[in-house]
Amino acid sequence: MFDRLCLIGVGLIGSSIAHRARRDGLAKEIVATARSQATRDTVARLKIADKVYATAAEAVAGADLVILCTPPGAFGAVAKEIAPHLAPGAILTDVGSVKQAVVDDVGPHVPPGVHFVPGHPVAGTENSGPESGFAELFEGRWSILTPPQATDPAATDKLAAFWKALGSKVEVMDARHHDLVLAITSHVPHLIAYNIVGTAADLEEVTQSEVIKFSAGGFRDFTRIAASDPTMWRDIFLGNKEAVLEMLGRFTEDLTALQRAIRWGDGDTLFNLFTRTRAIRREVIDAGQETPAADFGRPHGKG
Amino acid sequence: MFDRLCLIGVGLIGSSIAHRARRDGLAKEIVATARSQATRDTVARLKIADKVYATAAEAVAGADLVILCTPPGAFGAVAKEIAPHLAPGAILTDVGSVKQAVVDDVGPHVPPGVHFVPGHPVAGTENSGPESGFAELFEGRWSILTPPQATDPAATDKLAAFWKALGSKVEVMDARHHDLVLAITSHVPHLIAYNIVGTAADLEEVTQSEVIKFSAGGFRDFTRIAASDPTMWRDIFLGNKEAVLEMLGRFTEDLTALQRAIRWGDGDTLFNLFTRTRAIRREVIDAGQETPAADFGRPHGKG
Repeated sequence: MFDRLCLIGVGLIGSSIAHRARRDGLAKEIVATARSQATRDTVARLKIADKVYATAAEAVAGADLVILCTPPGAFGAVAKEIAPHLAPGAILTDVGSVKQAVVDDVGPHVPPGVHFVPGHPVAGTENSGPESGFAELFEGRWSILTPPQATDPAATDKLAAFWKALGSKVEVMDARHHDLVLAITSHVPHLIAYNIVGTAADLEEVTQSEVIKFSAGGFRDFTRIAASDPTMWRDIFLGNKEAVLEMLGRFTEDLTALQRAIRWGDGDTLFNLFTRTRAIRREVIDAGQETPAADFGRPHGKG
Repeated sequence: MFDRLCLIGVGLIGSSIAHRARRDGLAKEIVATARSQATRDTVARLKIADKVYATAAEAVAGADLVILCTPPGAFGAVAKEIAPHLAPGAILTDVGSVKQAVVDDVGPHVPPGVHFVPGHPVAGTENSGPESGFAELFEGRWSILTPPQATDPAATDKLAAFWKALGSKVEVMDARHHDLVLAITSHVPHLIAYNIVGTAADLEEVTQSEVIKFSAGGFRDFTRIAASDPTMWRDIFLGNKEAVLEMLGRFTEDLTALQRAIRWGDGDTLFNLFTRTRAIRREVIDAGQETPAADFGRPHGKG
């Protein structure tokens, strides 16, 4: 599909793209770059790229698909660095979880003749780094593309075909709408997971040992999300401030209503919500976005 | 270990006890009762009890271990009903997720000569009903016993040995402390999961179809907990009001601080929390309370 696929940054997402593209022959050549020597060494050892470069400028030379896979806070600086070296006709995309900020930070650096199509695969695990990637990460998940209005539709189509080849389904939408959707389906959920884990760790009356021992009551589910990459998530919250604050306001408003229902013993309000939310999980499972196995299919017992 | 084990109510927990007790021969006879004919029929079909009775009074007759496994809101009424029929020397316990309320609701009905030892296995899945139970549910998890001060220590020891035989580890603590610990490790996590799923369902700007499609960004994790039994969870929040409101107040206070950090672009505060919470997941895994597999070991890809 592409002659030279260039990955700038090779964490969970970048390495998963490389694994899949290599397995399925989606590019004649796969090249990569990473800021640290340690990551470049790991990529070389994993043999998921044909060449690993020390600078992004070298890596993008001659590439017809360039994917920014660093934490989103670095996109602007990287775009500025690689801009003079991008090949005419190349597609430039990214995998960041925030999209309007990418349009604002990267857009101004994109030279004429280069197709800029921001993207976001809604997939991941709590692990990070090049060794956490695997070829099946995008299978059955959705990738969102947010091309600015002036973008050549052919470039968007070509990138969509690439994501489908990676196993993904594809949806195209406006960058601001993406940011609103992801604020509620991803960013606020991460924030409240980080927050409850922090609250639990700071208690005086309940020891940390008790929190950990009795975490199977629900808390441990939140620790998974709260183990996600700190740098990436800092950048996400700073980059999607407006939508996160809007959704967080609604979350808090609803939580206050539940708090009041508990205080005043209003069991019906609680029961009605708890019944409604149960139906939503069923829909998530029916849509193929979740396993129907109890407890996520976690192991129970020791055999 | 026991001559006649009597289960009052046979949902996820009751049926899991029956499966395990039967498999490992922990009682000479296992009897059960449930309020609905449908549940009694299911229990008979599953063959996890030797006898299924229509009334709790018949079921408890001659039992040396009686376990209340109904939703906790029903414990008081059940205790009143069975009290005259309990055998002298029997142990009466429960599996409710709130303990001081059980002491208050059940305690006054317990006749002299019956040993009352409230209990709570910190284990479960999002499924409910007799068919959701399995013998390994308690393996490696903690069960908490909260005997009132006057309880014969021998009865507590015997019940602890029973829970260990079910695969559980056992800790003994004060009922009020239990309620505080569980408020943060289980009850507030459930409340915020129910709440975020409700908030997402109510949005006008983001469609329910979008919420479901893009749920792999984090939201879907919350739908599991928010699919838990509505009756049981209503009763838990009403029964542990004080501790839940206390922990919820702390959660909201901390969340407000994060909200402020996002508004003012304070990346360091976010980064520091996100780093701290990552370490806590490692401890939960090291304590054997969670699988180390990425994404809870959920399936990725279609093979």
